[in-house]
Amino acid sequence: MVYMANSKADDIFKEFKEHSVSEFFKKNRQMLGYSSMVRSLVTVVHEYVTNSLDACEEAGILPDIRVKVERLGDTKYRISVDDNGPGVPKGFIGKALATVLAGTKFHRNVQQRGQQGIGAAGCTLFAQITTGKPIHAVSYTDTDSGYSCDVSIDTMRNKPVVSNLVQEGPAQHTGLSVSGEFDGVKYDTSDHGVYEYLKRTALSNPHVQIVFTDPNGQEYSFLRSVETIPEKPKAARLHPLGLTVNDMLDLAHASGNNKLSSFLTDTFSRFSQGKVNELKEIVGIDFSMDPKKLTWDDASKLVDGFKRVRWIAPEAEHIVPIGKKYVELTLKNIINPEFMNVVERKPSVFKGGFPFIVEAAIAYGGSSGRQTDSGYTGSIMRFANRVPLLFDTGSCGITEAVKQIQWKRYGIDIDNQPVSVLVNISSVYIPYSGVGKEAISPEEEIVEEIKLALMDAARGIQHYIHGKQQLNYDTNRYKTIMRYTNQLSENLSELTGMQKEAIHEALKRLVIEHYPRVKEHAGADAKEEDEDAQDEQDEETGDSADAQEQEQ
Amino acid sequence: MVYMANSKADDIFKEFKEHSVSEFFKKNRQMLGYSSMVRSLVTVVHEYVTNSLDACEEAGILPDIRVKVERLGDTKYRISVDDNGPGVPKGFIGKALATVLAGTKFHRNVQQRGQQGIGAAGCTLFAQITTGKPIHAVSYTDTDSGYSCDVSIDTMRNKPVVSNLVQEGPAQHTGLSVSGEFDGVKYDTSDHGVYEYLKRTALSNPHVQIVFTDPNGQEYSFLRSVETIPEKPKAARLHPLGLTVNDMLDLAHASGNNKLSSFLTDTFSRFSQGKVNELKEIVGIDFSMDPKKLTWDDASKLVDGFKRVRWIAPEAEHIVPIGKKYVELTLKNIINPEFMNVVERKPSVFKGGFPFIVEAAIAYGGSSGRQTDSGYTGSIMRFANRVPLLFDTGSCGITEAVKQIQWKRYGIDIDNQPVSVLVNISSVYIPYSGVGKEAISPEEEIVEEIKLALMDAARGIQHYIHGKQQLNYDTNRYKTIMRYTNQLSENLSELTGMQKEAIHEALKRLVIEHYPRVKEHAGADAKEEDEDAQDEQDEETGDSADAQEQEQ
Repeated sequence: MVYMANSKADDIFKEFKEHSVSEFFKKNRQMLGYSSMVRSLVTVVHEYVTNSLDACEEAGILPDIRVKVERLGDTKYRISVDDNGPGVPKGFIGKALATVLAGTKFHRNVQQRGQQGIGAAGCTLFAQITTGKPIHAVSYTDTDSGYSCDVSIDTMRNKPVVSNLVQEGPAQHTGLSVSGEFDGVKYDTSDHGVYEYLKRTALSNPHVQIVFTDPNGQEYSFLRSVETIPEKPKAARLHPLGLTVNDMLDLAHASGNNKLSSFLTDTFSRFSQGKVNELKEIVGIDFSMDPKKLTWDDASKLVDGFKRVRWIAPEAEHIVPIGKKYVELTLKNIINPEFMNVVERKPSVFKGGFPFIVEAAIAYGGSSGRQTDSGYTGSIMRFANRVPLLFDTGSCGITEAVKQIQWKRYGIDIDNQPVSVLVNISSVYIPYSGVGKEAISPEEEIVEEIKLALMDAARGIQHYIHGKQQLNYDTNRYKTIMRYTNQLSENLSELTGMQKEAIHEALKRLVIEHYPRVKEHAGADAKEEDEDAQDEQDEETGDSADAQEQEQ
Repeated sequence: MVYMANSKADDIFKEFKEHSVSEFFKKNRQMLGYSSMVRSLVTVVHEYVTNSLDACEEAGILPDIRVKVERLGDTKYRISVDDNGPGVPKGFIGKALATVLAGTKFHRNVQQRGQQGIGAAGCTLFAQITTGKPIHAVSYTDTDSGYSCDVSIDTMRNKPVVSNLVQEGPAQHTGLSVSGEFDGVKYDTSDHGVYEYLKRTALSNPHVQIVFTDPNGQEYSFLRSVETIPEKPKAARLHPLGLTVNDMLDLAHASGNNKLSSFLTDTFSRFSQGKVNELKEIVGIDFSMDPKKLTWDDASKLVDGFKRVRWIAPEAEHIVPIGKKYVELTLKNIINPEFMNVVERKPSVFKGGFPFIVEAAIAYGGSSGRQTDSGYTGSIMRFANRVPLLFDTGSCGITEAVKQIQWKRYGIDIDNQPVSVLVNISSVYIPYSGVGKEAISPEEEIVEEIKLALMDAARGIQHYIHGKQQLNYDTNRYKTIMRYTNQLSENLSELTGMQKEAIHEALKRLVIEHYPRVKEHAGADAKEEDEDAQDEQDEETGDSADAQEQEQ
């Protein structure tokens, strides 16, 4: 071993370099979701479908999306996504599909599925790394006549490269089609596959129509069940509560207002002149100052002052949850439970002044939960702004909240019952824990709010599950007692000389009257159970003549 | 609800913008590890300590690190880290501490703790967002006389801002001190706190000395237990196996060689002229071509060809694991187990041609595992390049591998036994699943290799645990039988007229001879157990005189 004991800092720093964000994600593509082969394929579909849905919503179009996965080789596939969205103007196609951290979403307080300007560029990067092929795009806007082109990324500079630009003839409708070849991916029909992803997407977006062609050419249609376009997402104004000093400074310094007071009333939601007057009383700063001159100390005093004033709850108009009605529809469609309870919480504020809404549902029975070797275990369906989250379950705030609930208090045995838990978080800003957007950071305020939603939902289902348990108990007692009525009536008949059948009928009536819910709920099952009970008794007594009589 | 049905693509795209990577992480700081208050504080310490250790190792210096956490307010702390590393040349301090994606590590195939050029800049960003204060740095290199300055980030442009630059007098040794004020953080003494982080760091880096001052002014010293500096990390050449076509093209196009053949032998490890000749036979391309003109197709043929040729295993000289001896020392220090088995696997190749080495250990007893209300459960200690990973446990490839092992096959009940599992992965490139570097992406090749290491380790401990179980079984039988020797000898004495004590001694000797391991292993415990057994028997028989006799 040789040490360079006199190695100088200069020696080390002569290797110093800056890197583009494209280079970074090229090297760390697993951070974008390109890790396992199955996940990589779903990630591509997820990024494109998410963008299509956002674009349609923004343009007020009922989305019609076609997804096609074609097998080109062992681990090589072509993935194509076509939409009827507004299309992409020619001058933007390179930046939209092949520049990391560029887009229309990052800087606006608008609830959208995508938010980072990374997704589509990540797909381009992934195609480029694995097959060396650019992404092919065809776009029609309502002003362009349409064009097609190939896009790739100059990763060293994080700049788009657009080639083979061709004018296209007129089309029937606007829209964007993207298509790329990817290697090191795998199509899979599991719960973590494209089919499941699209199914859940359709279910949390009942206004969307998706046609999916799988690698065997089999076509699946997820038809829209609602003709209403969800409200066009509106930019939200920040609520003063939860705002950081840094946010306040950034906004103030970028403000076009001349006075701090008008900056406050113009910029924040629920901020009236009355509030300014209230704050003047408790915050010792000059409210007529130029907001561009606000210092950290002043901003800090302001933000502290906000916490000592009462505010109307944040505006929720710009947050679009799935809606209780649609969550119920969704659950009915997916798992057709015996019973469910859906809760939509009021808006709550997460740090930075962004309101969010949690929807939670608990379903019992039907195809709820997951079947295991020894019975059932509970399952969790996670959504963020209606986008299904299939991966990184372990590190998600939703999972964390579900774990923290003391389910037994609600009579729910989440490890051993057919229970499904659904949670959707809607917000203009979802704090994803990773760039791949598959898990929500377990921030305290969010985990707490999800827990409250789950507890609400659990309370609503508690009675049902308790009743269900009572019914199970009653049914068992009913069956046990019924099992002995035949033998008992025979014995009583011998003792009393009365007709056995009469005694038996009377005994059965007694039992049935004592357990009215068993008959009522169990229906046909109860009848079968009677027969089962009878069969078992026959075996015990060996009296098959009687048994035949009973069955008539 | 008003829809803008005719919203044009142009309307949407007029909002299109590009963002700097600093802006991105400013908005998504949870992705860097700044989520919960406790984690945020540990993240700052983690980033600075990691950089200090890397710098010392690169300069061949035995690290002496001082970490200080001071409480300034409710959730506000000053965190300072001083090292005796090589320092940072004046011209680089801004870029080193306040430019995201800049550094000496990202582009070199060298095993280091940090690798992304994000960590220190992330700390600066976090200080800036939460307290508005820059980071204060003092640096001495062996050529500078030393200087101090404040650094912050112009986030819109991702450029450093250096201010208050002051020349400092001469110092006793080179080094870098950084200090910052952070809000929204919390000091915690749990398993996820700074103390635990530093303790584990010291234990996986026995050559490091760390002095930690906690917010109460209490000083903790983790002294070095080894005076040997680990080998200076050397740049690794890529191994041809596992190389992607894209990597090959990038390397070829950046090459200074004139011929493909010399590019291959110069660039890759284990690539002799003999290999070139072998490949010429099976790959139909011109090996005298200019590597800068290599096409995707040619590169693809080459990479496919690599897979059809036999290669010597990748060089492991540039991978520096902790070492079996030190892992054993570590485990002994942390948990002093009854038994442990440490396995160091041979190097394996992960996609991209990067070799990695897995070390795994399983410890039983002592303070292994974690105590629960009802007994014990297994615990996992994860390390990557000797850096302890405390967060994002659920989404880590190490956790995944541990879960996939069928522990019962090895007689280990990981949910209910005092078992600790330690895994360290060493590589020039660790595929972290997130930018915060707290979890390793569960890539198949890595998970498989960890599983093999764990199975090796489990096989080695299986006998011990089996023996332990047998011993438990024997001990129980021993105690049960011993319990009745007194009563039995009394009865036999009555029946035969022989002296009770003689019979009792003979009986006990018989039992002891029959269970030699119980005596041998249990030692003092077995004696206590004898007494316990005796006590219980006394209660049964009420014969305390006898009991006193036994005890003498």
